[in-house]
Amino acid sequence: MRRIRLKLKKRSYDIIVGCGIINRLGNCVHKLNIGADAYVITNPLIRIKFGKAIQGALSKSGMSVRFKTVADTEKSKSVETAARVLKDLAAYDLKKRIFIVALGGGVVGDLAGFVASIYKRGIPYIQVPTTLLAQVDSAIGGKTAIDLSTGKNLIGAIYQPKLVFSDVGFLKSLSLRQIRAGLAEVIKYGIIKNPGLFSFIEKNSSDILRCKPAALELIVQRCSKIKADVVSRDEKEESGLRTILNFGHTIGHAIETASGYNKFNHGEAVALGILIACGISRRLGLIKLPVEKRVGELIKKVGLPTQISGISIERIINTHYHDKKFLGKRNRFVLIKRIGITQITRDIPLKIIKDSIKERF
Amino acid sequence: MRRIRLKLKKRSYDIIVGCGIINRLGNCVHKLNIGADAYVITNPLIRIKFGKAIQGALSKSGMSVRFKTVADTEKSKSVETAARVLKDLAAYDLKKRIFIVALGGGVVGDLAGFVASIYKRGIPYIQVPTTLLAQVDSAIGGKTAIDLSTGKNLIGAIYQPKLVFSDVGFLKSLSLRQIRAGLAEVIKYGIIKNPGLFSFIEKNSSDILRCKPAALELIVQRCSKIKADVVSRDEKEESGLRTILNFGHTIGHAIETASGYNKFNHGEAVALGILIACGISRRLGLIKLPVEKRVGELIKKVGLPTQISGISIERIINTHYHDKKFLGKRNRFVLIKRIGITQITRDIPLKIIKDSIKERF
Repeated sequence: MRRIRLKLKKRSYDIIVGCGIINRLGNCVHKLNIGADAYVITNPLIRIKFGKAIQGALSKSGMSVRFKTVADTEKSKSVETAARVLKDLAAYDLKKRIFIVALGGGVVGDLAGFVASIYKRGIPYIQVPTTLLAQVDSAIGGKTAIDLSTGKNLIGAIYQPKLVFSDVGFLKSLSLRQIRAGLAEVIKYGIIKNPGLFSFIEKNSSDILRCKPAALELIVQRCSKIKADVVSRDEKEESGLRTILNFGHTIGHAIETASGYNKFNHGEAVALGILIACGISRRLGLIKLPVEKRVGELIKKVGLPTQISGISIERIINTHYHDKKFLGKRNRFVLIKRIGITQITRDIPLKIIKDSIKERF
Repeated sequence: MRRIRLKLKKRSYDIIVGCGIINRLGNCVHKLNIGADAYVITNPLIRIKFGKAIQGALSKSGMSVRFKTVADTEKSKSVETAARVLKDLAAYDLKKRIFIVALGGGVVGDLAGFVASIYKRGIPYIQVPTTLLAQVDSAIGGKTAIDLSTGKNLIGAIYQPKLVFSDVGFLKSLSLRQIRAGLAEVIKYGIIKNPGLFSFIEKNSSDILRCKPAALELIVQRCSKIKADVVSRDEKEESGLRTILNFGHTIGHAIETASGYNKFNHGEAVALGILIACGISRRLGLIKLPVEKRVGELIKKVGLPTQISGISIERIINTHYHDKKFLGKRNRFVLIKRIGITQITRDIPLKIIKDSIKERF
């Protein structure tokens, strides 16, 4: 078990990473003094799989536990679901000292964090991520959000949790497709910040895909450390540093939205976004073809998609204009100069973007 | 025209108070560099009264203006209305540099501020309050909120505007009842912080009720200064200083909620809450009867209610348990020791609270 500190003055918190550590959750939460009544937002499957363990761990430390389940789909990140959860929470809240537990993947984490941020102008919450994607990325850094039909994550807040508790033991129950989705983000961290991590995945992809605890712990720790450092230095994406975490996400989000959050999951869309960002980087002369090929080969090796089908390129481009990364009429992309080094570029000709997307059809 | 600075480091902003200054709005906003496209949230009546003036003032400075109206009732502070506005905003937003203008009273200000706080994890907004209540209180300090059926302001954020622009010329169009409602908050400021302001209202109530600009400018400036100072020193109600602004509001909110936001408006409910807080203060030996009587006489003089009817006392007490000021099972009230001096008291026996409420029936 390892503690990584995300430093944000009074709002600093720990990211705890380990394997089979769930029974220590109550103790960790108790020390934080954030409340006595856990309101656990999760999905039905996770509740069946881990509900008892969570309940046991928390009630051992004298806390009451109430579960609220939402469907395990991007559609749960809606205004309607948020409203339903908030109403339930308010009805339950009488005379309690409530804190929220986000138990699940990115959907539950984003929704639960958002609910915590706006209920009574902000109540404490903790992240207990159960997917690889959430453990390495979405549970860390306080970005909370829900979607509108016009775009993903259009509503939200930056609101930090009091703890991120990542037990890689949870990951054994994931499907191969879900592990792969998380790996897309891990590959992203390697590309933007850590060539060693990139090589590690190249060499150990089969251990990772088979959920060997040692390999999972290493990548979750490594990614948590990278993300914690970036968020500590640029929480609100003001200096531009945090922006590099969006590598692969600008087009990735557009692909997700254009496909109606259906055909590609977030990680798969990000993998495609990474490849397209590499294509743009190569077309602008920032990288040579072999770098792009190396990235493409790793993505292929771990079983993530390298080609798009079933959506039109026009739809991706149009959706794309609504992305937060488009400031006014100007575009802005995170690109790479080599594995481990990023560069933010503005005003890229639409033709280069289009050609790089087309290449993936 | 006077500028009062609310100091919060990078989030500091001006409160501008004057009479007949609306034509200067565009210039003031332009200097802030917060966007080029104004999304004005208002109600139908205000749009008819001041829409053209606002549109003229902003477009003179090269800004586009779009109006979005919501019903002029507390019911607009709902999840449903917030969702409707957000969807409209997102559909309108393509390729724009949007900022939000809250043009109206407390309802519009709370709703528009909340929408600004959660859209794209926060976009700039300004407050252009058109009621006395909003100018002296709700438009200042960044408290934004919507209601749930279980309680008022249960959902929200603390999110500061970039400017508060108070033209007391707007107030001429208010009904006497609305002026009185605002006066309840002004009286509150006098009681908690400024005996001179309290005396001023005693002496000049008829000028105020007749909307004489000089009297209105003086009270709006004085109250804005008090509120700005308190918020600068305790933005998030952490040190307890900002809590004193809740004087009269704990029971006041309960009365509002219990009456279904119908029989009493916010100011009327606060006036009753002030009297009940005085009653509790007297019963606990903090003040003598003459102080309570002086407050009661002023409230009566300006035409605010001193008696409750049409709701049961049980309903007030029950609703009351859901108020934010109730931490866990402990109550907490802002009371007074004399005009101008407050004291926060916890764990007040329910009997004393009940007796003080009963007195108002």
